[in-house]
Amino acid sequence: MESPTHSADKKIKVGIIGGTGYTGGELLRLLTNHPNVTIEAVTSRKSAGVRIDTIHKHLKGFYNQAFETPDLGAIAKRCDIVFTAVPHGAAMNDVPQLLKDTLVKVVDLSADYRLPASVFEKTYALKHTDPRDVVYGLVELHPEAASETLVANPGCYPTGSNLAAAPLAAKGLIDHAIFDSKSGVSGAGIKPSDVSHYPNLAQNIEAYKLTTHRHAAEIRQELGRLQGDIGSISFTPHVIPAIRGILTTAHIFTKEKMDTDAVQAIYTEFYAPHPFVRVIDSIPMLGGVRGTNFCDIFVEVDESSNRIVVVSAIDNLVKGASGQAIQNMNLMFNLPQTTGLWTPAVNP
Amino acid sequence: MESPTHSADKKIKVGIIGGTGYTGGELLRLLTNHPNVTIEAVTSRKSAGVRIDTIHKHLKGFYNQAFETPDLGAIAKRCDIVFTAVPHGAAMNDVPQLLKDTLVKVVDLSADYRLPASVFEKTYALKHTDPRDVVYGLVELHPEAASETLVANPGCYPTGSNLAAAPLAAKGLIDHAIFDSKSGVSGAGIKPSDVSHYPNLAQNIEAYKLTTHRHAAEIRQELGRLQGDIGSISFTPHVIPAIRGILTTAHIFTKEKMDTDAVQAIYTEFYAPHPFVRVIDSIPMLGGVRGTNFCDIFVEVDESSNRIVVVSAIDNLVKGASGQAIQNMNLMFNLPQTTGLWTPAVNP
Amino acid sequence: MESPTHSADKKIKVGIIGGTGYTGGELLRLLTNHPNVTIEAVTSRKSAGVRIDTIHKHLKGFYNQAFETPDLGAIAKRCDIVFTAVPHGAAMNDVPQLLKDTLVKVVDLSADYRLPASVFEKTYALKHTDPRDVVYGLVELHPEAASETLVANPGCYPTGSNLAAAPLAAKGLIDHAIFDSKSGVSGAGIKPSDVSHYPNLAQNIEAYKLTTHRHAAEIRQELGRLQGDIGSISFTPHVIPAIRGILTTAHIFTKEKMDTDAVQAIYTEFYAPHPFVRVIDSIPMLGGVRGTNFCDIFVEVDESSNRIVVVSAIDNLVKGASGQAIQNMNLMFNLPQTTGLWTPAVNP
Amino acid sequence: MESPTHSADKKIKVGIIGGTGYTGGELLRLLTNHPNVTIEAVTSRKSAGVRIDTIHKHLKGFYNQAFETPDLGAIAKRCDIVFTAVPHGAAMNDVPQLLKDTLVKVVDLSADYRLPASVFEKTYALKHTDPRDVVYGLVELHPEAASETLVANPGCYPTGSNLAAAPLAAKGLIDHAIFDSKSGVSGAGIKPSDVSHYPNLAQNIEAYKLTTHRHAAEIRQELGRLQGDIGSISFTPHVIPAIRGILTTAHIFTKEKMDTDAVQAIYTEFYAPHPFVRVIDSIPMLGGVRGTNFCDIFVEVDESSNRIVVVSAIDNLVKGASGQAIQNMNLMFNLPQTTGLWTPAVNP
Repeated sequence: MESPTHSADKKIKVGIIGGTGYTGGELLRLLTNHPNVTIEAVTSRKSAGVRIDTIHKHLKGFYNQAFETPDLGAIAKRCDIVFTAVPHGAAMNDVPQLLKDTLVKVVDLSADYRLPASVFEKTYALKHTDPRDVVYGLVELHPEAASETLVANPGCYPTGSNLAAAPLAAKGLIDHAIFDSKSGVSGAGIKPSDVSHYPNLAQNIEAYKLTTHRHAAEIRQELGRLQGDIGSISFTPHVIPAIRGILTTAHIFTKEKMDTDAVQAIYTEFYAPHPFVRVIDSIPMLGGVRGTNFCDIFVEVDESSNRIVVVSAIDNLVKGASGQAIQNMNLMFNLPQTTGLWTPAVNP
Repeated sequence: MESPTHSADKKIKVGIIGGTGYTGGELLRLLTNHPNVTIEAVTSRKSAGVRIDTIHKHLKGFYNQAFETPDLGAIAKRCDIVFTAVPHGAAMNDVPQLLKDTLVKVVDLSADYRLPASVFEKTYALKHTDPRDVVYGLVELHPEAASETLVANPGCYPTGSNLAAAPLAAKGLIDHAIFDSKSGVSGAGIKPSDVSHYPNLAQNIEAYKLTTHRHAAEIRQELGRLQGDIGSISFTPHVIPAIRGILTTAHIFTKEKMDTDAVQAIYTEFYAPHPFVRVIDSIPMLGGVRGTNFCDIFVEVDESSNRIVVVSAIDNLVKGASGQAIQNMNLMFNLPQTTGLWTPAVNP
Repeated sequence: MESPTHSADKKIKVGIIGGTGYTGGELLRLLTNHPNVTIEAVTSRKSAGVRIDTIHKHLKGFYNQAFETPDLGAIAKRCDIVFTAVPHGAAMNDVPQLLKDTLVKVVDLSADYRLPASVFEKTYALKHTDPRDVVYGLVELHPEAASETLVANPGCYPTGSNLAAAPLAAKGLIDHAIFDSKSGVSGAGIKPSDVSHYPNLAQNIEAYKLTTHRHAAEIRQELGRLQGDIGSISFTPHVIPAIRGILTTAHIFTKEKMDTDAVQAIYTEFYAPHPFVRVIDSIPMLGGVRGTNFCDIFVEVDESSNRIVVVSAIDNLVKGASGQAIQNMNLMFNLPQTTGLWTPAVNP
Repeated sequence: MESPTHSADKKIKVGIIGGTGYTGGELLRLLTNHPNVTIEAVTSRKSAGVRIDTIHKHLKGFYNQAFETPDLGAIAKRCDIVFTAVPHGAAMNDVPQLLKDTLVKVVDLSADYRLPASVFEKTYALKHTDPRDVVYGLVELHPEAASETLVANPGCYPTGSNLAAAPLAAKGLIDHAIFDSKSGVSGAGIKPSDVSHYPNLAQNIEAYKLTTHRHAAEIRQELGRLQGDIGSISFTPHVIPAIRGILTTAHIFTKEKMDTDAVQAIYTEFYAPHPFVRVIDSIPMLGGVRGTNFCDIFVEVDESSNRIVVVSAIDNLVKGASGQAIQNMNLMFNLPQTTGLWTPAVNP
């Protein structure tokens, strides 16, 4: 599909709604290296009029403009695509205003459009005011996102978990699975809290919402799409003393005992067409994906049971948020998905 | 039982075989505050003649003596108890020399006597040269350790895992269980390595031996003793960017769905007689046990499946090694088990 | 001097005003191991009625009581000594209420009584409502604190800086000095802030108040007492990614070039009577003093200039706050200053 | 000047001697985004034949080639430029082999050519076997590097220190200066050591070589070039618990008391032509330069003395090593110095 608003000699005009947080800052950081975009508008209610590099000091020299008040109708008209980087509950208010009477495309980074409204309402205990049928923008599983006007960018934990289990689910092999995830604290946002308080987090690992984290719904939804008869999907998150990154240890029990080579072949084949998923031959480290849109995956079969351990590593702010949003944008504008995102990790 | 070698007006003479590593240093640190002991001998092959506080600089002012060459027969005669803090494979050589023709007691901190010789040989791929029937010194499960001459001090991971699951196993309630453990790097020892190299570990979490860690054998052994028909026991360890501590997230699937209150009651009752296990009403943090012999435990029932999540926290060098060894010593000498160990965590 | 309120068979009754912060928690932690005290009252305006171990979870098992409302007059009558662990500006309000018509002793951990009122008012831009002549409780420099009713506990940075330079100042040798200090973030308190936000502090070191930190006044005061003609005293603090500890790198320019042996002799002799200051032969590490009341010091003469580099390490919450307060208490009650404080660092 | 070996339609062929360490890996990382280069050869004695992405796993997908044996003569002929990323002492052996009978250009990242041979020999206690007159490649101070065949890439500490003080030295204003630097541990290399051992470095800050670090010679050389009558230059380094970055706190005593506005104007003017030095209005954080070639600088005048505090922040592996080497290469090949290096920091 040819984007109506984009041609080779024209830059894609990008708007960002909610630009002061970590995902907004990360969109801005990543887009400095994107050859086909120009930043048209970045909004902030609270910081309207403040220069972008006053809030995001690391961007000094890259942006001269200031945050502006979110006049959604006008921004939709000025832009080819808008990223909504606002809290859940706010996006369902902003997105219909953006889409109304415009050709603008939207990638929503919030949770509002990832689940059917009924599941959303139960999971988030919040009335959905804009129920729509929206594609879940995990592009390795949903290539159809490329032709959409509105895409729901996946949650950070579900990105790592679903990529870890999808090849087995696609083959209908999973009995039940436990996703034990460990995340850097930037996932909790830019605002200081007890969790992000250094004396609490350093030299610690904080397990939380042991059985009740809302991201479980996205994992159940996507793996359930791939394998209708899948058993229990358990998810327990932890915050580790790291800024970025999610390491997911997936304990996947298969219906029958499997052979290591067969499992590796399934993963290698499944991800062959997907440049950002690297099936590697050593256990992933967060340093290997830091600052990038990669998901590194390693699999090992437990000789003593029907368990397969799959370890996946992503950068929660990139493949888990802003990078994946740009990956969606690339596809929505008929660009190679790697455009502007093909950089190696900052490691060590 | 009255110890033959100890009376109220006499200090227990302690020997430490292998005093330069972290567990040796931790024994020395903890024993500075023990009212009933005196350090008779601390050995090191490599550092014989070097002052203890040259290696363990934080002990300056507490010990004036030097490491000595391990003359085991002589040390056994000079001491009432000897802690063997040597690598696995070395202890099975040292322990029989210590026990020969003496009344000395021994707490072995290595893996050599924790498993039956046949299991040990399979697990460690090493011939056992001193097979004996030795009590596994997790005193909350093995009070009989108090009357032994030789006690096998448990491994660090199994201590946290077994304490997390024992109350349910003792009731025969477990179907299968996955222990996903996260350890500080001091468990890997005092010698620098790729794992402990700061640029590798900081901002990372390193999963390793996903399905093959040797400590799984101790978990299977102890939970199997409590519940003969227990199903698969899976164990996957990680190293986190922390010096001390092990947080274990136990995903325990029960035969039938259980009620939260019932589960909590089981844990509270099980650990009521055990001062070092605190069943708490919030998720444990490593800071809460740092430097101490406590194991903090929290339980939560998953409403969506038969899973119970139990989180336990210990300090791997204390309850997971040297503190537990002293706890064993206290009981072996008829002292309150808390003697010299009843201090709160250094937190924050 | 015999304390009128204390005898061998009677415990010292301790009150703590402001017990929910880090210094309050640290007083409570350290006093669990003090053989001569009993905790009579711990106050908190905000958390009155809440159990101590609800706020300070690591103290579970050590205190059963709750915080109480600060009824200062009554508490003064119930206690032999009160520690005021309240913000600067609050102590000058509380202390006179405590001292009025009682025999209670007070150690104030705030900044309110460390400086003459005129200097305080200029430094803190705050009117002093209770000007008094109070001894500065750095006991290595002020043994007379032992006979006082009210003692001003020193600031954390000045403790490390003054101990680093005092021996040279006492000999009148200093031309000018720069104290470049690096502190763990617990010095900034228990409340989350931008500085303590993990993504800001980890992988960083934050220099702040480069030329204007208020603690400089305490350093100038104490070194000026020792050496009247001392030149400029500069102080620049940093926050490092550590929970506890202050490492001070003192660049001390002497009037004339000095000999290394002579300098070391000056330090060794100066601190010989002081058990908590260890002049060591290697550069101090924070791990060497973690959780303890020690100050470790190392000196090195620069062969290329008149500079001496002195490095000191303390735990800011212990020797830099609560431990030093207890050290003061010990002396005020005629106890050995090491009572309850003689424990080695939790290292590694 | 037109480079003889480069034209617009031809890629610069790059060789890297010693590609397995951190600076080699960082050259490879940064050059993935450089539009004008192709990697012709990467050598390693030990790992010849091993794929680059086996050692530098984060580069998987970016390089398919293997390390090769360092056949220097052949490599010089195959390449337009060679980076020597070998230890000091080795470069003086390799560089003359590379330069012999070829047109190849060389940027040496070791210390071998940064100082006159006589100073080098005294500082490094090593005979110099290839004394030459080589330009010191801190391009903000040495634009003449652009026309050289061999450039000595500056040390990491001197880069941050010299950029912090150069504007004042260039005006002849400095009396004496103390550079108190704090470095991430990647500066110590990829090989595990006691310093990089996580339990030693975490929760600590390690001062070392308090008065004897060899990088002091580079600071004295460069500031002495700018201001002949400069007084004592003191340098004391520390390792902080961070992977990357050097924060330098420069305590600069000026001959006369200066005005803040005047000092800021001096810095702003001095660095106006230099895109990688950002004189900013808040104290630099390492996160602001992480992964980039920037040096952020802030100045503050001490109202109480003749001291100016200048804080500079760099990434030691980029502006302090490989990025600066590429900056030199750009100039040597008549490219804009920012080519391939103009990316914002990965922050948070």
